[in-house]
Amino acid sequence: MSEYLNALSCGPIAARASGIEPFHVMELLTRAHQLEAEGRDIIHMEVGEPDFPTSAPVIEAARKALENGRVFYTPAAGIRKLREAISGHYARRFGLAVEPERIIVSAGASAALMLAIAALTEAGQEWLLPDPGYPCNRVFVRAFEGVPRALHVGPETDFQPTPAQVEQHWQRNTRGLIVASPSNPTGTLIAHDALAGILECCRARQGALIVDEIYQGLTYGTEPWSALALGEDLFVINSFSKYFGMTGWRLGWLVAPQAYVREIEKLAQHFYISPSAPAQHAALAAFDPQNIEILEERRKALEARRDVLLAGLRSLGFSVPAVPQGAFYVYADVSGLADDSFAFAHRLLEEAGVAATPGLDFDTLTPQRWLRFAYTTDVTRIAEALERLRKIL
Amino acid sequence: MSEYLNALSCGPIAARASGIEPFHVMELLTRAHQLEAEGRDIIHMEVGEPDFPTSAPVIEAARKALENGRVFYTPAAGIRKLREAISGHYARRFGLAVEPERIIVSAGASAALMLAIAALTEAGQEWLLPDPGYPCNRVFVRAFEGVPRALHVGPETDFQPTPAQVEQHWQRNTRGLIVASPSNPTGTLIAHDALAGILECCRARQGALIVDEIYQGLTYGTEPWSALALGEDLFVINSFSKYFGMTGWRLGWLVAPQAYVREIEKLAQHFYISPSAPAQHAALAAFDPQNIEILEERRKALEARRDVLLAGLRSLGFSVPAVPQGAFYVYADVSGLADDSFAFAHRLLEEAGVAATPGLDFDTLTPQRWLRFAYTTDVTRIAEALERLRKIL
Repeated sequence: MSEYLNALSCGPIAARASGIEPFHVMELLTRAHQLEAEGRDIIHMEVGEPDFPTSAPVIEAARKALENGRVFYTPAAGIRKLREAISGHYARRFGLAVEPERIIVSAGASAALMLAIAALTEAGQEWLLPDPGYPCNRVFVRAFEGVPRALHVGPETDFQPTPAQVEQHWQRNTRGLIVASPSNPTGTLIAHDALAGILECCRARQGALIVDEIYQGLTYGTEPWSALALGEDLFVINSFSKYFGMTGWRLGWLVAPQAYVREIEKLAQHFYISPSAPAQHAALAAFDPQNIEILEERRKALEARRDVLLAGLRSLGFSVPAVPQGAFYVYADVSGLADDSFAFAHRLLEEAGVAATPGLDFDTLTPQRWLRFAYTTDVTRIAEALERLRKIL
Repeated sequence: MSEYLNALSCGPIAARASGIEPFHVMELLTRAHQLEAEGRDIIHMEVGEPDFPTSAPVIEAARKALENGRVFYTPAAGIRKLREAISGHYARRFGLAVEPERIIVSAGASAALMLAIAALTEAGQEWLLPDPGYPCNRVFVRAFEGVPRALHVGPETDFQPTPAQVEQHWQRNTRGLIVASPSNPTGTLIAHDALAGILECCRARQGALIVDEIYQGLTYGTEPWSALALGEDLFVINSFSKYFGMTGWRLGWLVAPQAYVREIEKLAQHFYISPSAPAQHAALAAFDPQNIEILEERRKALEARRDVLLAGLRSLGFSVPAVPQGAFYVYADVSGLADDSFAFAHRLLEEAGVAATPGLDFDTLTPQRWLRFAYTTDVTRIAEALERLRKIL
């Protein structure tokens, strides 16, 4: 029976699925869980999710929403009030006028990315994707029969693409480019002028620029800004997960140029019906001054963690050539310590009980050089991890 | 400026999006809202969502989940406890052994359908889709560069496909077939033997059978069963939206043959990260006997509504040739009353203040003959709607 079932009796799995490499960190995590089952204490620095729970004002808004029966389908692009609240946030925080009509609330930034790519990509068209970068972007492009094309970025440009590079790699069938700032896995930002130059490059080719701002607000020692300051002819992805602390609620948004909104809404109607209603009503409280105060405290805590981790890793012989100014990641070059970051990650886990994510999950050019450390645990645990690493290195 | 923006400066919209026809009921709804703004009372029988709010035990479970901080990402296929609870539901309700490992919890049945189709479809492959049927299925197939092929079904087979018909329409590049029971828009069920014959037909061709059971539990005068009774080599879609009353939470599930689960999980990781955590914890209470009792009361209320609506429409000259035994729809043939159901729907709205969904949204062969009436409002409102229709017909 099981042989029969393993024989793919319903026909082959499509290449868009079978072609996905499993996350290599999963193998590491399986081993970490074994060690934990044996009683070992593992410090998890592989998790891309902060340890802060959703803040009290948002939880309270959710509670009220449940009391008031806010549990029915909403419009596909989200409830009007939330689209207005996001618009208000752009006005207050960035001095930007972004009409609520251009804001499409989505089931997480995942849905926002999928909608944008689905709405823009014909089969065979290429997207330029900075590498190292968020691995799901390759899968989204591939899902809709587009072709992901790696744009290799290194520490000399803060792991961000340059206008010259985009120009050089743009081909006849290039559909556009995805830029993330702050970036995962590097935590680095793109400079205003670089992004402006890239947008010019896209404009000249009638290409599309998607800017992933899901870590917006989580920046340290620098004023946050939005790519929307550059014009209305680009696509911006955002999320309630990171700065707003709502990961498991699955809520994000997409800002699209006006001319694309109607078609994206139609796609959203069919793909998702609507984003989660309780999550949307909860998120209405996200922008309250009282809540922002809590989130700013958390941001400061993250900044302190980054400082400890960055200095600590450097003192241990890790090289961090581009200072991470956002998100909650340090992308560290381990070539001064080991030849192969994947084997090295296993060594850190076995000998020090510290879990980090291997470069393999983000980087197709020099994955063996890199490890991503997430500062999503308390600063005392980070200090403990550094101490344990010091002992074995 | 607005001309510039309307000029699709970021390049053309992809055919998968621009090719989507807007729902025709939207035009009708816009007019309904105008009339309501003018003070008219409109009875909404176009809404595919019952008026019952989420039941108290599920709301209570959600409240507890929020208190306990269940707001973080979960595994992509859902929390273990919920997969086990769904497995237990299949055992208790249908006497079926469905391993939790084969159950993938998803962001609504929408996500379950997208995952199954994405995992199975190569560009250019065809899916046979009963017509009239759920319009989003066409969009899902098209989204992944598959080709939707209409399988015209009529009242003589309860609007369900037959094995002979599937055999006749199966071509070299046919990937599979989607069957819904109970069906939207017709509310009709497929007979056990017909579905078994169709599954045999798919097996003989190594094709895939997807059975949409999202209205499971909402059947009247007949014992519910699951296509999973026929074997382990088919894909079954289900949802917490309809029977379990959780539409706005966006939670559903997919049961897949074991050999496909790992690849579908990888897709789910990338497409969605995870289903909503609060929704999953809320849904744990869905299967409690105390909750099922509430849901069964609601089912009985729906059955009473169906009886009133069905008899009423027939007495007014609508023909309902296949008795709807499930879901909450009556698909009525208006050809004895009007030539064009779309114009007729507008007349019902203007003259009687009754909104129904035109066949155009479901049916590509004889849309002008049909209207879908949803019994998602109270029985007194349904009686009032029938009385108003009587006056104008």
